[in-house]
Amino acid sequence: MMQQNPDFDFLVRLAEAAAAVVLPQFRTPLSADNKAEGAGFDPVTAADRAAEEAIRAIIGEAFPQDGIIGEEYGAAGQQADRIWVIDPIDGTRAFLAGIPVWGTLIGLLDKARPAFGVMSQPYIGEVFLGDGSAAELRFRGGRRAIRTRPAEAIGAATLMSTSPRLFTPEERQAYERLAAETRNERFGGDCYAYAMLAAGHVDLVVEAGLHVHDIVPLIPIIEGAGGVVSSWDGGSPLGGGRILAAADRRLQEEAIALLGE
Amino acid sequence: MMQQNPDFDFLVRLAEAAAAVVLPQFRTPLSADNKAEGAGFDPVTAADRAAEEAIRAIIGEAFPQDGIIGEEYGAAGQQADRIWVIDPIDGTRAFLAGIPVWGTLIGLLDKARPAFGVMSQPYIGEVFLGDGSAAELRFRGGRRAIRTRPAEAIGAATLMSTSPRLFTPEERQAYERLAAETRNERFGGDCYAYAMLAAGHVDLVVEAGLHVHDIVPLIPIIEGAGGVVSSWDGGSPLGGGRILAAADRRLQEEAIALLGE
Repeated sequence: MMQQNPDFDFLVRLAEAAAAVVLPQFRTPLSADNKAEGAGFDPVTAADRAAEEAIRAIIGEAFPQDGIIGEEYGAAGQQADRIWVIDPIDGTRAFLAGIPVWGTLIGLLDKARPAFGVMSQPYIGEVFLGDGSAAELRFRGGRRAIRTRPAEAIGAATLMSTSPRLFTPEERQAYERLAAETRNERFGGDCYAYAMLAAGHVDLVVEAGLHVHDIVPLIPIIEGAGGVVSSWDGGSPLGGGRILAAADRRLQEEAIALLGE
Repeated sequence: MMQQNPDFDFLVRLAEAAAAVVLPQFRTPLSADNKAEGAGFDPVTAADRAAEEAIRAIIGEAFPQDGIIGEEYGAAGQQADRIWVIDPIDGTRAFLAGIPVWGTLIGLLDKARPAFGVMSQPYIGEVFLGDGSAAELRFRGGRRAIRTRPAEAIGAATLMSTSPRLFTPEERQAYERLAAETRNERFGGDCYAYAMLAAGHVDLVVEAGLHVHDIVPLIPIIEGAGGVVSSWDGGSPLGGGRILAAADRRLQEEAIALLGE
Protein backbone atom coordinates (compact mmCIF):
# COMPACT_ATOMS: atom_id res chain seq x y z
CA MET A 1 0.00 0.00 0.00
CA MET A 2 1.33 3.44 -0.96
CA GLN A 3 1.31 5.70 2.01
CA GLN A 4 0.03 9.20 1.69
CA ASN A 5 2.73 11.86 1.78
CA PRO A 6 2.65 14.54 4.42
CA ASP A 7 2.28 18.07 3.06
CA PHE A 8 3.88 21.29 4.26
CA ASP A 9 0.81 22.09 6.36
CA PHE A 10 1.29 18.81 8.26
CA LEU A 11 4.93 19.72 8.90
CA VAL A 12 3.86 23.13 10.15
CA ARG A 13 1.37 21.42 12.47
CA LEU A 14 4.22 19.36 13.95
CA ALA A 15 6.36 22.48 14.33
CA GLU A 16 3.55 24.36 16.03
CA ALA A 17 2.94 21.52 18.48
CA ALA A 18 6.63 21.60 19.38
CA ALA A 19 6.63 25.39 19.67
CA ALA A 20 3.69 25.30 22.08
CA VAL A 21 5.79 23.43 24.64
CA VAL A 22 9.25 24.84 23.81
CA LEU A 23 8.59 28.57 23.60
CA PRO A 24 7.26 28.94 27.16
CA GLN A 25 10.58 27.45 28.34
CA PHE A 26 12.81 29.72 26.22
CA ARG A 27 14.61 32.36 28.28
CA THR A 28 13.49 30.95 31.60
CA PRO A 29 15.81 29.46 34.20
CA LEU A 30 16.27 25.90 33.00
CA SER A 31 17.20 22.81 34.90
CA ALA A 32 19.68 21.51 32.37
CA ASP A 33 20.41 17.86 32.79
CA ASN A 34 23.74 16.50 31.75
CA LYS A 35 23.51 13.63 29.29
CA ALA A 36 27.26 13.36 29.03
CA GLU A 37 28.37 13.32 32.64
CA GLY A 38 32.08 13.78 32.93
CA ALA A 39 32.32 14.35 29.19
CA GLY A 40 31.71 18.07 28.87
CA PHE A 41 28.48 19.98 28.85
CA ASP A 42 25.56 18.61 26.85
CA PRO A 43 22.48 20.46 27.99
CA VAL A 44 19.12 18.80 27.71
CA THR A 45 15.99 20.44 28.89
CA ALA A 46 12.51 19.39 29.78
CA ALA A 47 11.41 21.40 26.75
CA ASP A 48 13.46 19.13 24.50
CA ARG A 49 11.66 16.05 25.74
CA ALA A 50 8.18 17.55 25.82
CA ALA A 51 8.57 18.77 22.24
CA GLU A 52 9.63 15.36 20.99
CA GLU A 53 6.69 13.75 22.79
CA ALA A 54 4.28 16.19 21.15
CA ILE A 55 5.74 15.55 17.69
CA ARG A 56 5.73 11.77 18.13
CA ALA A 57 2.09 11.78 19.24
CA ILE A 58 0.93 13.59 16.08
CA ILE A 59 3.03 11.45 13.73
CA GLY A 60 1.91 8.26 15.48
CA GLU A 61 -1.71 9.16 14.95
CA ALA A 62 -1.39 10.34 11.32
CA PHE A 63 1.13 7.76 10.10
CA PRO A 64 1.10 4.81 12.50
CA GLN A 65 3.15 2.60 10.16
CA ASP A 66 6.11 5.00 9.99
CA GLY A 67 9.24 4.60 12.07
CA ILE A 68 10.67 7.42 14.20
CA ILE A 69 14.19 8.37 15.30
CA GLY A 70 14.32 11.11 17.91
CA GLU A 71 17.19 12.76 19.75
CA GLU A 72 15.58 12.22 23.13
CA TYR A 73 13.60 8.98 22.92
CA GLY A 74 15.60 6.91 20.43
CA ALA A 75 14.36 4.78 17.56
CA ALA A 76 11.13 2.88 16.91
CA GLY A 77 9.90 1.00 13.84
CA GLN A 78 13.22 1.04 12.02
CA GLN A 79 12.03 -1.66 9.59
CA ALA A 80 9.47 0.75 8.11
CA ASP A 81 9.92 2.27 4.62
CA ARG A 82 9.45 5.71 6.04
CA ILE A 83 11.33 7.01 9.03
CA TRP A 84 10.79 10.35 10.74
CA VAL A 85 13.89 12.02 12.18
CA ILE A 86 13.41 14.51 15.00
CA ASP A 87 15.68 16.98 16.79
CA PRO A 88 13.29 18.87 19.06
CA ILE A 89 15.81 21.63 19.89
CA ASP A 90 18.82 21.81 17.60
CA GLY A 91 21.25 24.29 19.10
CA THR A 92 20.67 23.79 22.81
CA ARG A 93 23.71 25.97 23.63
CA ALA A 94 22.14 28.85 21.69
CA PHE A 95 18.80 28.05 23.37
CA LEU A 96 20.40 28.28 26.82
CA ALA A 97 22.12 31.55 25.92
CA GLY A 98 18.82 33.08 24.79
CA ILE A 99 19.95 33.42 21.16
CA PRO A 100 17.07 32.58 18.79
CA VAL A 101 19.01 30.63 16.16
CA TRP A 102 18.06 27.22 17.59
CA GLY A 103 15.32 25.33 15.82
CA THR A 104 13.01 22.36 15.88
CA LEU A 105 14.05 19.94 13.12
CA ILE A 106 11.74 17.28 11.71
CA GLY A 107 12.52 15.26 8.60
CA LEU A 108 11.08 12.29 6.75
CA LEU A 109 13.26 9.63 5.15
CA ASP A 110 11.41 7.67 2.45
CA LYS A 111 13.36 4.50 1.63
CA ALA A 112 16.47 6.25 3.00
CA ARG A 113 15.89 9.33 0.80
CA PRO A 114 15.38 12.66 2.63
CA ALA A 115 11.91 13.50 1.32
CA PHE A 116 10.49 16.22 3.57
CA GLY A 117 11.97 18.55 6.13
CA VAL A 118 11.07 21.46 8.39
CA MET A 119 13.13 23.83 10.51
CA SER A 120 11.10 25.97 12.86
CA GLN A 121 12.36 28.96 14.88
CA PRO A 122 9.27 29.92 16.86
CA TYR A 123 10.61 32.89 18.83
CA ILE A 124 11.28 34.74 15.59
CA GLY A 125 8.25 33.11 13.98
CA GLU A 126 9.92 31.44 11.03
CA VAL A 127 9.25 28.01 9.51
CA PHE A 128 11.51 26.75 6.70
CA LEU A 129 10.06 23.88 4.64
CA GLY A 130 11.35 21.70 1.83
CA ASP A 131 10.57 18.55 -0.13
CA GLY A 132 13.75 18.25 -2.19
CA SER A 133 12.31 20.03 -5.23
CA ALA A 134 10.91 23.18 -3.64
CA ALA A 135 11.46 25.12 -0.43
CA GLU A 136 9.62 27.92 1.29
CA LEU A 137 9.75 30.24 4.27
CA ARG A 138 6.64 30.99 6.30
CA PHE A 139 6.98 34.08 8.45
CA ARG A 140 4.18 35.62 10.46
CA GLY A 141 1.34 34.81 8.11
CA GLY A 142 3.28 35.24 4.86
CA ARG A 143 5.05 32.65 2.75
CA ARG A 144 7.59 32.82 -0.05
CA ALA A 145 9.64 30.39 -2.09
CA ILE A 146 13.34 30.39 -1.17
CA ARG A 147 16.35 29.67 -3.39
CA THR A 148 20.07 29.46 -2.82
CA ARG A 149 21.96 32.23 -4.57
CA PRO A 150 24.13 31.62 -7.63
CA ALA A 151 27.63 30.77 -6.50
CA GLU A 152 30.12 33.54 -6.89
CA ALA A 153 33.77 32.65 -6.77
CA ILE A 154 34.72 31.14 -3.41
CA GLY A 155 36.60 34.39 -2.71
CA ALA A 156 33.25 36.17 -2.50
CA ALA A 157 31.52 33.47 -0.45
CA THR A 158 29.99 33.76 3.01
CA LEU A 159 30.89 30.75 5.16
CA MET A 160 29.18 29.67 8.36
CA SER A 161 29.94 27.15 11.07
CA THR A 162 28.62 26.78 14.60
CA SER A 163 31.96 26.84 16.41
CA PRO A 164 35.62 26.07 15.74
CA ARG A 165 35.36 23.77 18.79
CA LEU A 166 33.38 21.31 16.64
CA PHE A 167 36.55 20.24 14.91
CA THR A 168 39.35 17.84 15.74
CA PRO A 169 42.79 19.38 15.13
CA GLU A 170 42.95 17.69 11.73
CA GLU A 171 39.45 18.84 10.79
CA ARG A 172 40.35 22.30 11.99
CA GLN A 173 43.28 22.47 9.56
CA ALA A 174 40.99 21.53 6.68
CA TYR A 175 38.39 24.07 7.79
CA GLU A 176 41.02 26.80 8.03
CA ARG A 177 42.24 26.11 4.48
CA LEU A 178 38.70 26.68 3.26
CA ALA A 179 37.90 29.63 5.52
CA ALA A 180 41.04 31.47 4.38
CA GLU A 181 39.66 31.53 0.82
CA THR A 182 36.24 32.94 1.70
CA ARG A 183 35.29 36.58 2.18
CA ASN A 184 32.87 36.56 5.09
CA GLU A 185 32.97 34.02 7.92
CA ARG A 186 30.44 33.74 10.66
CA PHE A 187 30.27 31.43 13.69
CA GLY A 188 27.17 30.65 15.72
CA GLY A 189 24.81 29.08 13.26
CA ASP A 190 23.42 25.69 14.23
CA CYS A 191 20.47 24.80 12.00
CA TYR A 192 19.87 28.47 11.28
CA ALA A 193 23.01 28.59 9.12
CA TYR A 194 21.59 25.93 6.79
CA ALA A 195 18.28 27.80 6.61
CA MET A 196 20.15 30.96 5.58
CA LEU A 197 22.01 28.98 2.92
CA ALA A 198 18.67 27.74 1.57
CA ALA A 199 17.33 31.29 1.62
CA GLY A 200 20.25 32.67 -0.40
CA HIS A 201 22.23 34.60 2.23
CA VAL A 202 25.01 32.13 3.01
CA ASP A 203 27.06 30.20 0.44
CA LEU A 204 28.77 27.47 2.48
CA VAL A 205 28.18 25.72 5.80
CA VAL A 206 30.96 23.46 7.08
CA GLU A 207 30.61 21.47 10.29
CA ALA A 208 31.76 18.24 11.89
CA GLY A 209 30.55 15.84 14.55
CA LEU A 210 26.91 16.15 13.51
CA HIS A 211 24.32 13.54 14.43
CA VAL A 212 21.87 12.10 11.91
CA HIS A 213 19.04 14.15 13.40
CA ASP A 214 21.12 17.36 13.09
CA ILE A 215 21.28 17.16 9.30
CA VAL A 216 18.65 14.84 7.77
CA PRO A 217 15.68 17.21 8.28
CA LEU A 218 17.63 20.06 6.66
CA ILE A 219 18.50 18.20 3.44
CA PRO A 220 15.08 18.49 1.71
CA ILE A 221 15.05 22.21 2.51
CA ILE A 222 18.55 22.84 1.14
CA GLU A 223 18.02 20.64 -1.93
CA GLY A 224 14.54 22.03 -2.47
CA ALA A 225 16.12 25.49 -2.60
CA GLY A 226 18.73 24.42 -5.17
CA GLY A 227 21.63 23.70 -2.82
CA VAL A 228 23.65 20.57 -2.22
CA VAL A 229 24.62 18.68 0.94
CA SER A 230 27.32 16.04 1.29
CA SER A 231 30.06 14.85 3.54
CA TRP A 232 33.37 16.74 3.27
CA ASP A 233 34.58 14.32 0.59
CA GLY A 234 31.39 14.52 -1.46
CA GLY A 235 29.83 11.34 -0.07
CA SER A 236 26.41 10.81 1.49
CA PRO A 237 25.49 13.20 4.33
CA LEU A 238 22.90 10.81 5.79
CA GLY A 239 25.17 9.50 8.50
CA GLY A 240 26.00 12.93 9.91
CA GLY A 241 29.64 13.56 10.86
CA ARG A 242 31.54 16.00 8.63
CA ILE A 243 28.94 17.97 6.70
CA LEU A 244 29.33 20.41 3.82
CA ALA A 245 26.38 22.36 2.45
CA ALA A 246 26.84 24.58 -0.60
CA ALA A 247 24.69 26.94 -2.63
CA ASP A 248 25.44 24.96 -5.79
CA ARG A 249 27.54 22.13 -7.15
CA ARG A 250 30.40 24.26 -8.46
CA LEU A 251 31.00 25.83 -5.06
CA GLN A 252 30.65 22.41 -3.43
CA GLU A 253 33.42 21.07 -5.68
CA GLU A 254 35.73 23.95 -4.84
CA ALA A 255 35.07 23.41 -1.14
CA ILE A 256 35.66 19.64 -1.33
CA ALA A 257 39.00 20.28 -3.04
CA LEU A 258 40.09 22.73 -0.31
CA LEU A 259 38.92 20.52 2.55
CA GLY A 260 40.69 17.47 1.11
CA GLU A 261 44.03 19.01 0.12
CA MET B 1 21.08 75.53 31.04
CA MET B 2 20.16 71.98 31.99
CA GLN B 3 19.17 70.05 28.96
CA GLN B 4 16.15 67.82 29.05
CA ASN B 5 16.96 64.12 29.16
CA PRO B 6 15.67 61.83 26.45
CA ASP B 7 13.30 59.15 27.68
CA PHE B 8 12.97 55.53 26.56
CA ASP B 9 10.19 56.49 24.15
CA PHE B 10 12.55 58.91 22.39
CA LEU B 11 15.15 56.14 22.06
CA VAL B 12 12.50 53.84 20.64
CA ARG B 13 11.58 56.55 18.14
CA LEU B 14 15.22 56.68 16.98
CA ALA B 15 15.32 52.89 16.73
CA GLU B 16 12.12 52.81 14.71
CA ALA B 17 13.39 55.45 12.28
CA ALA B 18 16.50 53.33 11.73
CA ALA B 19 14.45 50.16 11.34
CA ALA B 20 12.28 51.78 8.66
CA VAL B 21 15.29 52.12 6.36
CA VAL B 22 17.32 49.07 7.48
CA LEU B 23 14.70 46.31 7.52
CA PRO B 24 13.73 46.64 3.84
CA GLN B 25 17.43 46.03 3.01
CA PHE B 26 17.82 42.98 5.29
CA ARG B 27 18.06 39.72 3.34
CA THR B 28 18.22 41.42 -0.03
CA PRO B 29 21.22 41.33 -2.35
CA LEU B 30 23.44 44.08 -1.03
CA SER B 31 26.10 46.09 -2.73
CA ALA B 32 28.63 45.90 0.06
CA ASP B 33 31.32 48.53 -0.16
CA ASN B 34 34.71 47.84 1.24
CA LYS B 35 35.87 50.41 3.75
CA ALA B 36 39.10 48.61 4.47
CA GLU B 37 40.48 47.89 1.02
CA GLY B 38 43.36 45.50 1.18
CA ALA B 39 42.78 44.97 4.88
CA GLY B 40 40.17 42.23 4.94
CA PHE B 41 36.44 42.44 4.49
CA ASP B 42 34.56 45.25 6.23
CA PRO B 43 31.10 45.34 4.72
CA VAL B 44 29.23 48.58 4.71
CA THR B 45 25.81 48.90 3.22
CA ALA B 46 23.59 51.65 1.99
CA ALA B 47 21.27 50.68 4.84
CA ASP B 48 24.01 51.52 7.34
CA ARG B 49 24.32 55.04 6.00
CA ALA B 50 20.61 55.69 5.57
CA ALA B 51 19.94 54.56 9.14
CA GLU B 52 22.57 56.87 10.58
CA GLU B 53 21.17 59.77 8.57
CA ALA B 54 17.67 59.09 9.90
CA ILE B 55 18.91 58.92 13.49
CA ARG B 56 21.03 62.09 13.16
CA ALA B 57 18.09 64.02 11.72
CA ILE B 58 15.83 63.26 14.70
CA ILE B 59 18.54 63.96 17.28
CA GLY B 60 19.51 67.18 15.52
CA GLU B 61 15.96 68.43 15.70
CA ALA B 62 15.23 67.37 19.29
CA PHE B 63 18.64 68.18 20.83
CA PRO B 64 20.45 70.61 18.51
CA GLN B 65 23.15 71.40 21.10
CA ASP B 66 24.28 67.78 21.47
CA GLY B 67 27.30 66.33 19.71
CA ILE B 68 27.15 63.14 17.65
CA ILE B 69 29.65 60.38 16.85
CA GLY B 70 28.50 57.95 14.20
CA GLU B 71 30.16 54.95 12.59
CA GLU B 72 29.43 56.18 9.08
CA TYR B 73 29.53 59.97 9.22
CA GLY B 74 32.11 60.68 11.91
CA ALA B 75 31.97 63.23 14.73
CA ALA B 76 30.26 66.60 15.11
CA GLY B 77 29.97 68.93 18.10
CA GLN B 78 32.55 67.13 20.22
CA GLN B 79 32.83 70.10 22.60
CA ALA B 80 29.24 69.55 23.78
CA ASP B 81 28.47 68.14 27.25
CA ARG B 82 26.30 65.49 25.70
CA ILE B 83 27.44 63.26 22.86
CA TRP B 84 25.30 60.71 21.03
CA VAL B 85 27.12 57.59 19.85
CA ILE B 86 25.61 55.68 16.92
CA ASP B 87 26.31 52.32 15.29
CA PRO B 88 23.50 51.97 12.76
CA ILE B 89 24.16 48.27 12.09
CA ASP B 90 26.35 46.54 14.65
CA GLY B 91 27.16 43.10 13.31
CA THR B 92 27.30 43.73 9.57
CA ARG B 93 28.69 40.23 8.99
CA ALA B 94 25.64 38.72 10.68
CA PHE B 95 23.46 41.16 8.73
CA LEU B 96 24.99 40.02 5.44
CA ALA B 97 24.54 36.35 6.41
CA GLY B 98 20.84 36.92 7.19
CA ILE B 99 21.28 36.11 10.89
CA PRO B 100 19.11 38.45 13.00
CA VAL B 101 21.56 39.10 15.85
CA TRP B 102 22.76 42.43 14.43
CA GLY B 103 21.35 45.56 16.00
CA THR B 104 21.07 49.31 15.80
CA LEU B 105 22.99 50.85 18.72
CA ILE B 106 22.40 54.37 19.97
CA GLY B 107 23.86 55.72 23.19
CA LEU B 108 24.13 59.04 24.97
CA LEU B 109 27.25 60.13 26.84
CA ASP B 110 26.53 62.85 29.39
CA LYS B 111 29.83 64.46 30.47
CA ALA B 112 31.56 61.26 29.36
CA ARG B 113 29.20 59.07 31.43
CA PRO B 114 27.11 56.51 29.47
CA ALA B 115 23.66 57.74 30.43
CA PHE B 116 21.20 56.18 27.99
CA GLY B 117 21.38 53.33 25.51
CA VAL B 118 19.25 51.35 23.10
CA MET B 119 19.86 48.15 21.12
CA SER B 120 17.22 47.42 18.53
CA GLN B 121 16.81 44.17 16.54
CA PRO B 122 13.90 45.01 14.27
CA TYR B 123 13.56 41.73 12.35
CA ILE B 124 12.82 39.91 15.60
CA GLY B 125 11.04 42.97 16.93
CA GLU B 126 13.07 43.54 20.10
CA VAL B 127 14.25 46.81 21.64
CA PHE B 128 16.56 46.72 24.69
CA LEU B 129 16.74 49.97 26.67
CA GLY B 130 18.74 51.16 29.64
CA ASP B 131 19.65 54.27 31.61
CA GLY B 132 22.26 52.84 33.98
CA SER B 133 19.81 52.24 36.80
CA ALA B 134 17.06 50.32 35.01
CA ALA B 135 16.76 48.31 31.81
CA GLU B 136 13.85 46.92 29.85
CA LEU B 137 12.97 44.82 26.84
CA ARG B 138 10.17 45.84 24.52
CA PHE B 139 8.94 43.01 22.32
CA ARG B 140 5.95 43.22 20.01
CA GLY B 141 3.84 45.54 22.12
CA GLY B 142 4.90 44.18 25.51
CA ARG B 143 7.60 45.42 27.87
CA ARG B 144 9.36 43.96 30.88
CA ALA B 145 12.21 44.93 33.16
CA ILE B 146 15.35 42.89 32.59
CA ARG B 147 18.07 41.89 35.10
CA THR B 148 21.32 40.02 34.88
CA ARG B 149 21.22 36.72 36.74
CA PRO B 150 23.07 36.13 39.99
CA ALA B 151 26.55 34.89 39.22
CA GLU B 152 27.07 31.23 39.75
CA ALA B 153 30.63 29.97 39.99
CA ILE B 154 32.55 30.63 36.79
CA GLY B 155 32.39 26.87 36.17
CA ALA B 156 28.64 27.20 35.61
CA ALA B 157 28.88 30.34 33.47
CA THR B 158 27.76 30.84 29.88
CA LEU B 159 30.35 32.81 27.92
CA MET B 160 29.82 34.56 24.60
CA SER B 161 32.09 36.18 22.04
CA THR B 162 31.51 37.11 18.42
CA SER B 163 34.43 35.19 16.93
CA PRO B 164 37.84 33.84 17.94
CA ARG B 165 39.14 35.83 14.95
CA LEU B 166 38.65 39.03 16.97
CA PHE B 167 41.73 38.23 19.01
CA THR B 168 45.44 38.69 18.51
CA PRO B 169 47.42 35.54 19.39
CA GLU B 170 48.15 36.95 22.84
CA GLU B 171 44.52 37.93 23.41
CA ARG B 172 43.49 34.51 22.22
CA GLN B 173 45.60 32.83 24.90
CA ALA B 174 43.94 34.96 27.57
CA TYR B 175 40.50 34.22 26.16
CA GLU B 176 41.22 30.48 26.09
CA ARG B 177 42.29 30.52 29.77
CA LEU B 178 38.91 32.00 30.64
CA ALA B 179 36.85 29.89 28.22
CA ALA B 180 38.35 26.68 29.60
CA GLU B 181 36.83 27.48 33.02
CA THR B 182 33.29 28.14 31.78
CA ARG B 183 30.56 25.60 31.12
CA ASN B 184 28.82 26.87 27.99
CA GLU B 185 30.54 28.87 25.26
CA ARG B 186 28.85 30.39 22.29
CA PHE B 187 30.26 32.34 19.34
CA GLY B 188 28.29 34.63 17.05
CA GLY B 189 26.96 37.31 19.31
CA ASP B 190 27.75 40.88 18.32
CA CYS B 191 25.57 43.29 20.28
CA TYR B 192 23.00 40.56 20.86
CA ALA B 193 25.34 38.81 23.29
CA TYR B 194 25.40 41.89 25.55
CA ALA B 195 21.61 42.13 25.37
CA MET B 196 21.33 38.49 26.48
CA LEU B 197 23.72 39.21 29.36
CA ALA B 198 21.51 42.11 30.42
CA ALA B 199 18.44 39.87 30.14
CA GLY B 200 19.95 37.19 32.39
CA HIS B 201 20.77 34.40 29.91
CA VAL B 202 24.52 34.92 29.45
CA ASP B 203 27.04 35.49 32.27
CA LEU B 204 30.13 36.78 30.47
CA VAL B 205 30.91 38.48 27.15
CA VAL B 206 34.59 38.81 26.20
CA GLU B 207 35.69 40.60 23.02
CA ALA B 208 38.56 42.61 21.62
CA GLY B 209 39.10 45.20 18.93
CA LEU B 210 35.81 46.97 19.62
CA HIS B 211 35.17 50.54 18.53
CA VAL B 212 33.69 53.15 20.85
CA HIS B 213 30.33 52.93 19.06
CA ASP B 214 30.28 49.13 19.47
CA ILE B 215 30.18 49.30 23.26
CA VAL B 216 29.13 52.74 24.60
CA PRO B 217 25.41 52.36 23.74
CA LEU B 218 25.31 48.96 25.47
CA ILE B 219 26.75 50.13 28.80
CA PRO B 220 23.61 51.81 30.19
CA ILE B 221 21.60 48.68 29.30
CA ILE B 222 24.05 46.27 30.97
CA GLU B 223 24.53 48.50 34.04
CA GLY B 224 20.82 49.25 34.22
CA ALA B 225 20.24 45.49 34.39
CA GLY B 226 22.76 45.04 37.23
CA GLY B 227 25.77 43.99 35.18
CA VAL B 228 29.23 45.48 34.85
CA VAL B 229 31.35 46.44 31.86
CA SER B 230 35.07 47.17 31.83
CA SER B 231 38.23 46.60 29.87
CA TRP B 232 39.91 43.21 30.40
CA ASP B 233 42.00 44.67 33.25
CA GLY B 234 39.04 46.31 34.98
CA GLY B 235 39.61 49.79 33.53
CA SER B 236 37.19 52.04 31.67
CA PRO B 237 35.39 50.46 28.71
CA LEU B 238 34.67 53.83 27.08
CA GLY B 239 37.52 53.63 24.60
CA GLY B 240 36.48 50.23 23.22
CA GLY B 241 39.24 47.70 22.58
CA ARG B 242 39.29 44.69 24.92
CA ILE B 243 35.88 44.52 26.55
CA LEU B 244 34.60 42.34 29.37
CA ALA B 245 30.94 42.37 30.41
CA ALA B 246 29.83 40.34 33.42
CA ALA B 247 26.57 39.59 35.18
CA ASP B 248 27.97 40.93 38.44
CA ARG B 249 31.16 42.18 40.08
CA ARG B 250 32.23 38.88 41.57
CA LEU B 251 32.19 37.15 38.21
CA GLN B 252 33.94 40.15 36.65
CA GLU B 253 36.76 39.83 39.18
CA GLU B 254 37.18 36.12 38.47
CA ALA B 255 37.28 36.84 34.76
CA ILE B 256 39.81 39.67 35.11
CA ALA B 257 42.09 37.35 37.09
CA LEU B 258 41.91 34.64 34.42
CA LEU B 259 42.40 37.06 31.52
CA GLY B 260 45.39 38.66 33.18
CA GLU B 261 47.24 35.59 34.44
